[in-house]
Amino acid sequence: MSSSDIFIGETIGTALLILLGGGVCAAVTLKASKARNAGWLAIAFGWGFAVLTAVYVSTPLSGAHLNPAVTLALAIKNDDWSTLPVYWGGQLLGAMIGALLVWIAYYGQFQAHLTDKDIVGETQQPARVKSVEAEEKGAGPVLGIFSTGPEVRVAWMNLATEIIGTFVLIIAVLTQGLSDDGKGLGALGGLITALVVTAIGLSLGGPTGYAINPARDLGPRIIHALLPLPNKGGSDWRYAWIPVVGPLIGGALGAGLYNLAFA
Amino acid sequence: MSSSDIFIGETIGTALLILLGGGVCAAVTLKASKARNAGWLAIAFGWGFAVLTAVYVSTPLSGAHLNPAVTLALAIKNDDWSTLPVYWGGQLLGAMIGALLVWIAYYGQFQAHLTDKDIVGETQQPARVKSVEAEEKGAGPVLGIFSTGPEVRVAWMNLATEIIGTFVLIIAVLTQGLSDDGKGLGALGGLITALVVTAIGLSLGGPTGYAINPARDLGPRIIHALLPLPNKGGSDWRYAWIPVVGPLIGGALGAGLYNLAFA
Amino acid sequence: MSSSDIFIGETIGTALLILLGGGVCAAVTLKASKARNAGWLAIAFGWGFAVLTAVYVSTPLSGAHLNPAVTLALAIKNDDWSTLPVYWGGQLLGAMIGALLVWIAYYGQFQAHLTDKDIVGETQQPARVKSVEAEEKGAGPVLGIFSTGPEVRVAWMNLATEIIGTFVLIIAVLTQGLSDDGKGLGALGGLITALVVTAIGLSLGGPTGYAINPARDLGPRIIHALLPLPNKGGSDWRYAWIPVVGPLIGGALGAGLYNLAFA
Amino acid sequence: MSSSDIFIGETIGTALLILLGGGVCAAVTLKASKARNAGWLAIAFGWGFAVLTAVYVSTPLSGAHLNPAVTLALAIKNDDWSTLPVYWGGQLLGAMIGALLVWIAYYGQFQAHLTDKDIVGETQQPARVKSVEAEEKGAGPVLGIFSTGPEVRVAWMNLATEIIGTFVLIIAVLTQGLSDDGKGLGALGGLITALVVTAIGLSLGGPTGYAINPARDLGPRIIHALLPLPNKGGSDWRYAWIPVVGPLIGGALGAGLYNLAFA
Repeated sequence: MSSSDIFIGETIGTALLILLGGGVCAAVTLKASKARNAGWLAIAFGWGFAVLTAVYVSTPLSGAHLNPAVTLALAIKNDDWSTLPVYWGGQLLGAMIGALLVWIAYYGQFQAHLTDKDIVGETQQPARVKSVEAEEKGAGPVLGIFSTGPEVRVAWMNLATEIIGTFVLIIAVLTQGLSDDGKGLGALGGLITALVVTAIGLSLGGPTGYAINPARDLGPRIIHALLPLPNKGGSDWRYAWIPVVGPLIGGALGAGLYNLAFA
Repeated sequence: MSSSDIFIGETIGTALLILLGGGVCAAVTLKASKARNAGWLAIAFGWGFAVLTAVYVSTPLSGAHLNPAVTLALAIKNDDWSTLPVYWGGQLLGAMIGALLVWIAYYGQFQAHLTDKDIVGETQQPARVKSVEAEEKGAGPVLGIFSTGPEVRVAWMNLATEIIGTFVLIIAVLTQGLSDDGKGLGALGGLITALVVTAIGLSLGGPTGYAINPARDLGPRIIHALLPLPNKGGSDWRYAWIPVVGPLIGGALGAGLYNLAFA
Repeated sequence: MSSSDIFIGETIGTALLILLGGGVCAAVTLKASKARNAGWLAIAFGWGFAVLTAVYVSTPLSGAHLNPAVTLALAIKNDDWSTLPVYWGGQLLGAMIGALLVWIAYYGQFQAHLTDKDIVGETQQPARVKSVEAEEKGAGPVLGIFSTGPEVRVAWMNLATEIIGTFVLIIAVLTQGLSDDGKGLGALGGLITALVVTAIGLSLGGPTGYAINPARDLGPRIIHALLPLPNKGGSDWRYAWIPVVGPLIGGALGAGLYNLAFA
Repeated sequence: MSSSDIFIGETIGTALLILLGGGVCAAVTLKASKARNAGWLAIAFGWGFAVLTAVYVSTPLSGAHLNPAVTLALAIKNDDWSTLPVYWGGQLLGAMIGALLVWIAYYGQFQAHLTDKDIVGETQQPARVKSVEAEEKGAGPVLGIFSTGPEVRVAWMNLATEIIGTFVLIIAVLTQGLSDDGKGLGALGGLITALVVTAIGLSLGGPTGYAINPARDLGPRIIHALLPLPNKGGSDWRYAWIPVVGPLIGGALGAGLYNLAFA
């Protein structure tokens, strides 16, 4: 694969991932959306099938990493770091484009939601335990459509959850090439990965909203900070390092276990 | 494939698509339906598995386009316009037959729903922002079982949402023939397409109800206008051009990106 | 396939189908069940995955018809009626065994439900339109776990719904052997059939509860009539012919369309 | 497969199974979880996709039994008992590790839930029929995240439900190697097994919470007894034998039917 194919593939793929993943968060959150309050199962399947769509489209160009933690894990596994910067660049750019497209697709819903007095002032974290950071740095009412945030804001807990969730993803992705007959999962692999991501959302998404992907969180957070949304509130930058660092640690640990037990 | 196989395959396939897709809208909407209020996730899976059923049945006859935007995109990709009119004709006829079958299957439910005083007068768009068009041209209480309608009625926004949703569908469909081993997705393709449509429904269906297919919207709207339903209200013809034009633009843009990045 | 393999395969397969299909109805209906009120989507997936389980288990023995309407359609398609009685016999016996197993698995829940004063007297058809038959012949409070019943009780409407639903199933099953490469769906076929049944449940189950299978309805209805359940109420025998005759007509029509358009 | 590969594969696989399976129970149960009250369908899909993830990861090392009842059934089928102790050891250790990881991932949620006066004192079995055991031996408020418990506490009923549920699982697993073409399900097998487990959860999970796996219940129950959770209440040891003995009986019966009808 050429560098330009990789960059284009990761940009298109990650844009699709965030368009559909951010889209389902918009769909269940925003006023004047037909899918409002569709529930957590809709979110988990929405992100899972976002992965499915993005993986099948980008596989022929870039092999469908779509996640800096996956790229890191494959670099460790293969001890080949040459294409990592191209992958990471495409992923971050794609995530930003995807968040922009969510804004365009839901433009009327954002307007309806953010200019309604009953809604502004809500946060997406109704049940979180009080903490100094949350008080100082309230996340805006639609930030959850762009990036993740914790219910209980304690750095080591949030890091641990993101590390564990990403670890599950990485070990599932790395072992797909293995099988009794040596043929791996073939075309079925994208579907299985999508359902693994659905599983992680259902099972490990409760505490932090399962970023498990640095680009998925950072790219849309940048767009949230830049967009001219009325009453949008803060972008919660004090939390932003956790969904970047946690998934990278989880990716490295997953690659480590792979090299120990499966290689 | 002969023209008659194409026409018959598209007619049968699109009839199945609308029977099952319109059916799930009837199931969750109408009084005296066991599935009433089953929620948006049921609608998204219902339409996704409607696509699945229709694709597998019609593939051997017509290759399962089932959507004028798909036919347009393939004509652009292959620069072959010869069979486009046959596809489009079968799709529109099939969509009309499918809508008729929904009416027959839910005949008692339509009667119960439309002759109940508590229900007539509701619209399927409870949260929409006030607009001159909506005031003048109220959509009837069961129109949402036949065709789509916006929550926020602003033409450029509704067009943008339909373009983006169809673009995702088209790029996913066109890239299915590509893969590392050159064999494409094979028999798995119909399942993947069905889950992509489920994804679009979950993630991009909130603003307009995701027509993403001109025949899916226009055919049933014609049937709604013709059927002798009591108290059926308007067919919202002022909106009808958007779910035709938007998906065709999205299909053309999807084919354009395919030719640029993947061909 | 020998006659004994066919009989044993259909008995085991249909018993699994009804155990899991009747089971999900028990799970969402009965007092003291953890899944109570899980909703229509749970029912539709529950029956779909019941089909999946039963199909994969019985395929090696009998080819997994599991439904007299499927057997009839294949007899018409292949013009071979020799094994039809063996298939039908195994299917009816299996459906009765499956219903017995639901009763054993949910024994405590049936007791809790049927001896609770607040619950006895409810029917499973809260929204149906008044009709003479319903008045005379009330279906008991747990009959819906065994067999189907209409929301609007008008014979031609209920027949029409069952014919249409079964027609969709049959045309999807018969076309599975067809494909561009002549290989059909292979091992994927059972999954696709399961999702088609989920689609029919979501989209066409609202009016009558989608029997779409004479054995699925008649076998458990016989068991309901025989079981010593307290306060069980009537078995609604006046309705019983519709979910037998409707699916057989739908199966014959499906085979007819197949022979016309696909053969 | 070497004994060390088997032990490591089963330990990793069962840890993933319990991390994701226990995780979804935590996600829908605990205060300050974004997925709280997501419902039974989320639980059934969560456990199903937990199986999917664990099966695909551990297949290359150990063939993915992940369940002492599966190992027992295969030992009976193949009349080879040599590796049974290694499988069972890895499964129990993995289940304990998985339960520990759930505790770490949801640490803040456990704290918020168990130190809230409104929540302590609830049990996870609100609707159960009164019984002497339940009175004496109340299960703690978060025990349901670790292990299963009955709604109606009568030993023979609970055993019967677990036997039936496990029997379905075992017969589905054992027949996967069979097919018309002798190739079995191949890479598709893990997905089918996952959906069979989803089916069992939807259809047979209502009475006892479907352990259908001795390690899945016993390992996490040990961890519940050991963990320093505040106000955790009892571990319900009087019930603990049922989800061990029931699945083993179900596994043996499944293997017996396989040998009679399919071998």
